[in-house]
Amino acid sequence: MSVYEKIFAILNKLDIEALIYIGGNDSMDTIKKLSDYAILTGSEIRFIGCPKTIDNDLALTDHTPGYGSAAKYIGTSVKEIVRDSLCLKYEKGLVTIIEIMGRNAGWLTGASVLAKGEDCTGPDMIYLPELSFDIKKFKEKVKKLLAKKGSVVVAVSEGIKTADGKYVCELGNSTDFVDAFGHKQLTGTASYLAGFIAAELGCKTRAIELSTLQRAASHLSSRVDILEAYQVGGAAVKAADEGDSGKMVVLVRHSDDPYQCGTEVKDVHKIANDEKLVPRNWLNSEGDYVTEDFVTYVRPLIQGDVAPIMVDGIPRHLYKPGK
Amino acid sequence: MSVYEKIFAILNKLDIEALIYIGGNDSMDTIKKLSDYAILTGSEIRFIGCPKTIDNDLALTDHTPGYGSAAKYIGTSVKEIVRDSLCLKYEKGLVTIIEIMGRNAGWLTGASVLAKGEDCTGPDMIYLPELSFDIKKFKEKVKKLLAKKGSVVVAVSEGIKTADGKYVCELGNSTDFVDAFGHKQLTGTASYLAGFIAAELGCKTRAIELSTLQRAASHLSSRVDILEAYQVGGAAVKAADEGDSGKMVVLVRHSDDPYQCGTEVKDVHKIANDEKLVPRNWLNSEGDYVTEDFVTYVRPLIQGDVAPIMVDGIPRHLYKPGK
Repeated sequence: MSVYEKIFAILNKLDIEALIYIGGNDSMDTIKKLSDYAILTGSEIRFIGCPKTIDNDLALTDHTPGYGSAAKYIGTSVKEIVRDSLCLKYEKGLVTIIEIMGRNAGWLTGASVLAKGEDCTGPDMIYLPELSFDIKKFKEKVKKLLAKKGSVVVAVSEGIKTADGKYVCELGNSTDFVDAFGHKQLTGTASYLAGFIAAELGCKTRAIELSTLQRAASHLSSRVDILEAYQVGGAAVKAADEGDSGKMVVLVRHSDDPYQCGTEVKDVHKIANDEKLVPRNWLNSEGDYVTEDFVTYVRPLIQGDVAPIMVDGIPRHLYKPGK
Repeated sequence: MSVYEKIFAILNKLDIEALIYIGGNDSMDTIKKLSDYAILTGSEIRFIGCPKTIDNDLALTDHTPGYGSAAKYIGTSVKEIVRDSLCLKYEKGLVTIIEIMGRNAGWLTGASVLAKGEDCTGPDMIYLPELSFDIKKFKEKVKKLLAKKGSVVVAVSEGIKTADGKYVCELGNSTDFVDAFGHKQLTGTASYLAGFIAAELGCKTRAIELSTLQRAASHLSSRVDILEAYQVGGAAVKAADEGDSGKMVVLVRHSDDPYQCGTEVKDVHKIANDEKLVPRNWLNSEGDYVTEDFVTYVRPLIQGDVAPIMVDGIPRHLYKPGK
């Protein structure tokens, strides 16, 4: 029995009329395959995709639920790191490299620009994986900045690559670079660049990975993001109820200011199963910062707060262990 | 001119009658020296110490302002990491090691216990630097836990050492462990242990450093902590105004429940200039978790919230660049 036969046997046994699948590119591909199989076999089960990924790399939709909250966390955390980096003085300066998620798309790293405001200079440089990374130019720029200010903060995507297609995090990975257990060590992009800058410029450096908290820090959600998650969910149920199949719900932005965004239903077959990248013209010509277009795009998505329900000083989660 | 002569010349020139110095052990040591020098030279300038350190390792005082907010951030973040770790399934399980600040004192790492509640199992193990770390026992315990559950989360202080006094983060630091620039690489405790467990048990592992955000994440402050910061500041001004010198303000806890805490003024010479450690009986007999006494101590310090003032979706900071 093929995996499709198994799935449909289960769905039929449970009398399921519609399946709504929530996720990113892979999930939409699944909806495509299942809805195609339903047509081939004459099944009446409907398959609807519903967007959700912090990566924001899904095509057809203006953005994906999850991204706004992750962007809000990243903007807030980068701002706090910039603030912290001003507290200590080092003779040759301090360079802080912040590593943010994103193998191929720089949506999350670009959101570090949100740290910038009247009360914060924000990161000094932002490098996305959409463009190749020139480590020499990077060093020169850091050097120039250190001559003017005591603290330089750089946001980099984990997936930045050099012009020859090598991940920066692999550059330090020579045969010498083996851990105590004989395994090649993937040191991370920020860690590599911090070591590189310390060695080249003799300044103090720090590497910070925002880690899984950038997708898990629910205590700092965006209200717009949470509301839109309900909105796409509702639209998916409505589409299934109206008999749609092989479709996905998308968010369509009508205006930036005031921010207005609605849902539509599109053919999931229109997704070419590759990641939506940050447009080239949303990065400056040097490729080391995002433009005002990026800010205009992301700013509405982080608006409003969702105060967590605090229990004994800590946010409550909607989860019971063992259930 | 000695450094003391310089300091007093400046203070006299500016007509300063009292100096209040805010900080931890080193700052209190400075107050001790300056107040002694004032007595020796017949200066009437008063010197008062005011406690402030997220490390909470200052003697004489029940706790230090800064600790409560850091503890709240750590409890919240560890809870979010535990939650995140339940979302992905790995055949041989997932072990997440979270590295928390503390070279010698485990106050911050112990606060990871705050993640535990009705809606979260919290970390499975907590290792403080007060006790030596037995890596074999650690491995056995992880193995036993993996047989029962798919995700194991461990909180470790950056400063944990083996019985022979070696930092765990130095264990992987063999001559092979040199970065691309020929420098010895301090890989970090979590990163070492994650590599060790992956190699020994074949499971998926993750290393997470809470980084400088544990001291900088002002968006998640404890109201009790902020109020007490004002309280010790006020008490320091009052002490100086009443003619005290060579004294420090301390927090004195009168009861845990209801939490009641006031200030007193103590002779700064009573501080032996070494860090206050977590008492042995606030750790269990195996030394891999904190006891209910620790929770009773820390829980009141994280109560209440301070909603950040949000500007365009991001917390405002009380700082203007260039000023």
